[in-house]
Amino acid sequence: MPIVLCLPIKASPPSLQDNSADLDRLKKVACESLGNIPLVIPWRQAGQVARNFRQAGFQGAALINQVEGRSELIDFLPCLPAVLPAMALDLGTTYLEASLIDLLSGKRLAQAHHPNGQIPFGDDVLSRIHVADRGTGLSDLQKAVIASINELSLLLADQAKVEPHHIRAMSVSGNPTMVHLFLGLDPHHMCREPYIPLVNAPDTAQAFELGLAINPAAPVYLLPGVGSYFGGDLISGILASGLDQQEETSMLIDVGTNAEVVLGNRDWLIACAGAAGPALEGGVARMGMRAGPGAIEHISINPKSREVAWQTIEHLPACGLCGSGIIDLVAGLYLAGIIDRRGKFRPGSDPARLIDTEGGFQYVVVAESQAAAGRAVVLEQVDLDALMRSKAAMYAILSTLLSQVGIAFSDLHRIYVAGAFGRHIAPRQAITLGMLPDLPLTVYQPIGNSSLSGAEKVLLEDEARQRCRQIMQKITYIELNVNQEFMLRFSGSKFIPHTNHSLFPSVPVFDW
Amino acid sequence: MPIVLCLPIKASPPSLQDNSADLDRLKKVACESLGNIPLVIPWRQAGQVARNFRQAGFQGAALINQVEGRSELIDFLPCLPAVLPAMALDLGTTYLEASLIDLLSGKRLAQAHHPNGQIPFGDDVLSRIHVADRGTGLSDLQKAVIASINELSLLLADQAKVEPHHIRAMSVSGNPTMVHLFLGLDPHHMCREPYIPLVNAPDTAQAFELGLAINPAAPVYLLPGVGSYFGGDLISGILASGLDQQEETSMLIDVGTNAEVVLGNRDWLIACAGAAGPALEGGVARMGMRAGPGAIEHISINPKSREVAWQTIEHLPACGLCGSGIIDLVAGLYLAGIIDRRGKFRPGSDPARLIDTEGGFQYVVVAESQAAAGRAVVLEQVDLDALMRSKAAMYAILSTLLSQVGIAFSDLHRIYVAGAFGRHIAPRQAITLGMLPDLPLTVYQPIGNSSLSGAEKVLLEDEARQRCRQIMQKITYIELNVNQEFMLRFSGSKFIPHTNHSLFPSVPVFDW
Repeated sequence: MPIVLCLPIKASPPSLQDNSADLDRLKKVACESLGNIPLVIPWRQAGQVARNFRQAGFQGAALINQVEGRSELIDFLPCLPAVLPAMALDLGTTYLEASLIDLLSGKRLAQAHHPNGQIPFGDDVLSRIHVADRGTGLSDLQKAVIASINELSLLLADQAKVEPHHIRAMSVSGNPTMVHLFLGLDPHHMCREPYIPLVNAPDTAQAFELGLAINPAAPVYLLPGVGSYFGGDLISGILASGLDQQEETSMLIDVGTNAEVVLGNRDWLIACAGAAGPALEGGVARMGMRAGPGAIEHISINPKSREVAWQTIEHLPACGLCGSGIIDLVAGLYLAGIIDRRGKFRPGSDPARLIDTEGGFQYVVVAESQAAAGRAVVLEQVDLDALMRSKAAMYAILSTLLSQVGIAFSDLHRIYVAGAFGRHIAPRQAITLGMLPDLPLTVYQPIGNSSLSGAEKVLLEDEARQRCRQIMQKITYIELNVNQEFMLRFSGSKFIPHTNHSLFPSVPVFDW
Repeated sequence: MPIVLCLPIKASPPSLQDNSADLDRLKKVACESLGNIPLVIPWRQAGQVARNFRQAGFQGAALINQVEGRSELIDFLPCLPAVLPAMALDLGTTYLEASLIDLLSGKRLAQAHHPNGQIPFGDDVLSRIHVADRGTGLSDLQKAVIASINELSLLLADQAKVEPHHIRAMSVSGNPTMVHLFLGLDPHHMCREPYIPLVNAPDTAQAFELGLAINPAAPVYLLPGVGSYFGGDLISGILASGLDQQEETSMLIDVGTNAEVVLGNRDWLIACAGAAGPALEGGVARMGMRAGPGAIEHISINPKSREVAWQTIEHLPACGLCGSGIIDLVAGLYLAGIIDRRGKFRPGSDPARLIDTEGGFQYVVVAESQAAAGRAVVLEQVDLDALMRSKAAMYAILSTLLSQVGIAFSDLHRIYVAGAFGRHIAPRQAITLGMLPDLPLTVYQPIGNSSLSGAEKVLLEDEARQRCRQIMQKITYIELNVNQEFMLRFSGSKFIPHTNHSLFPSVPVFDW
């Protein structure tokens, strides 16, 4: 059952013999077709519903929001609509991605993305939490993200050729900080031990309350989270991967601005999260960028000739490196002997491209003459260092989590890789760097933006909404911020592929 | 269970080992004590609830609204309050009466009344429905009554020494037109065949939505009605009298601006309503007034000496006649031979008091010298005519209703008389006029303002709220506007006591 139900109604007109009131008449007919569940007509909508019901001659379609514990009849249409659009939103720290889903057919009507208008207030969740602590910060942040979402709903409505007020529901999948700021709830305690969010499973709000420019009575469903660093975006990933329904044990990796990992099967789920992401989202490297048009998504370096081949998204002139591009590049640099096992440039290893500048060594990926806007795409030592930290953190997170339940990487049935990272990354290169475990490539399965696909799922199925609550109750969350084992494993992972080379038999080791 | 529950809460503080979010923690503890009913924390209150919960050290009292289908946790207090005031409102066409009830102890904390601010727009429901049809009429009428209610809540809060925002709930018992105007819902179709209200059983609203100056999150419960002329005020009366729970068949008479009558027992209920009231509420006679300080509530006329004895409410100088005073007076005039069986003054029958003026005969009840503000209290022929119509309508309503189920007045166990009318009226005099049936006086039982006491009941007991719905479903409503039998009975009742004198054996008949 979708989150908004479109129920055909055929009531007999009132008469002296059958003089029940308009809304009571409507409610009775609707209740009967719904199997006598509790149904209310909220005061705010009562006048309009009654007017429409009478004007339509007591026949048409009732729109019924499915919210916690009850159904709310919020509108009446003279006939069944052709589509019933609802908006699924992946509420990212950096980017918002959204789609418009038809609740009648389940079809996707439109898809769009937009930068998160909170970026000027700070790049990551921590800096935004600090902004929220000061003066009007919380309200400013909320207004900024609502404005971005309103831009997105305009884009989507435009694409689908509907009006924004035709959008009858919204689902939101985001990390807990983003969800708090979206709701205008104070995130203060989330970054302070013991890291407690104000709410993990917020109840459904209404669009007008939040200032959303869609139908005012649209229910706004928030995917529940588990802890301060484990939000609805990852519950979405579990929903989309089916991790919680399989007999075999698998793993889900979602790399956004943060890295979040879930391990488990239909009987148990364990999860953790850590700061692994910035370098991989293109948010840290000077030439880093999001996986969008003009971003170099794949690079190979010929280990002998040191020639570089690259490919950009949409085959446009290169303007930067996205996460998968950086991983390919660094893996290639290592195999070609241009960087060493510690991730440091080796002076003189590639005179044509490795240039010594005042700010240190720079590797020229794409020369000025070939790059977009005549600006060379380069990689600096500082970018390399950031990537080394990211990849070390990632492997440490994965191995710490496995050690908690006493299983080995080889016991995993699948590793689902979510997010833009998952869509573009070549697991082979990530294995070379020692970022992902050395497993057969068939184990890795990219699942795209699962935060968005989970948000789409909950719009369409109440089973998915129930699964969210079950996952939330079943999952055990490990707090890595205070985990000693994680810190040890992080240090061991700071080499390519690892200090313990036997963990990566498929990766050659060079002794430069 | 009261409409707002005050639930003691003792939650353990969060820690790294127990890191559930604040609101989820609160919800879990509350759900457990409530027996796992669906519980939500609405978005609008989430921030404040979380703030208070944390500030109170995760211990205190949760306030939980009981609304349709679910419970809503809307506030958190650091400790159990001394009182939890809720406002019961009898929403009359002419007067508002209200009380403040403590939901913890069930005690009445305060009581007050106030004129309905809609009076300048029209005296009766019909004229207000017409006003609502024009321009901003509906919104003007709503604002007027909300303003009056806000005055009342100030008065009540003042009396009880609490702040208006401490008032945590409101129940409203009123006729359907008053309820529609209170909610800002269009009453247009209620006075047009087939007389259909927009809603009989509105769902609970929230105080802030309606502009009520009590706690913004207070639930506003509306007693359901049955038809356009049978509202929650009468359902209140049934609740208060217990008519719906007794084995014996009884009758309930409620005379306000309208007269409403219910007949039945625990197995069946039948009801009707009609325009009988204005003369009895003091709304029509020139010297008519509400049953308040200075109103003459009882009068007797010595049939021989024609001396008049009278008594005012609070023993103040007389300033007018309330309903019971008019009935006493007219019964006395009849027994003393000053009016005839048709209700017309008999010229020359009382030279001391019956004065022939340019405007016709006037009977002087209280002379200028003895009346308040030096203004004599008089009764004119036009007032007498109005009363004769009212009394005829009343008896016609009662006898039509009985004839519908084929029982006689003598089969009635009780006749409950509600309203100010019931509190002050002497059934003996009403029988003399032929307004009420000629039954032993012990059959008559005044139950006071049962609209208000029913409203108090629903604040305190969910059983009472459930009974409202059961009564509503069980009751059969007879539309007198289209009833031929009623019109015939009305004509027969236009004499004192009746054209068929055998119906009133206890009343002497004079052949003047």
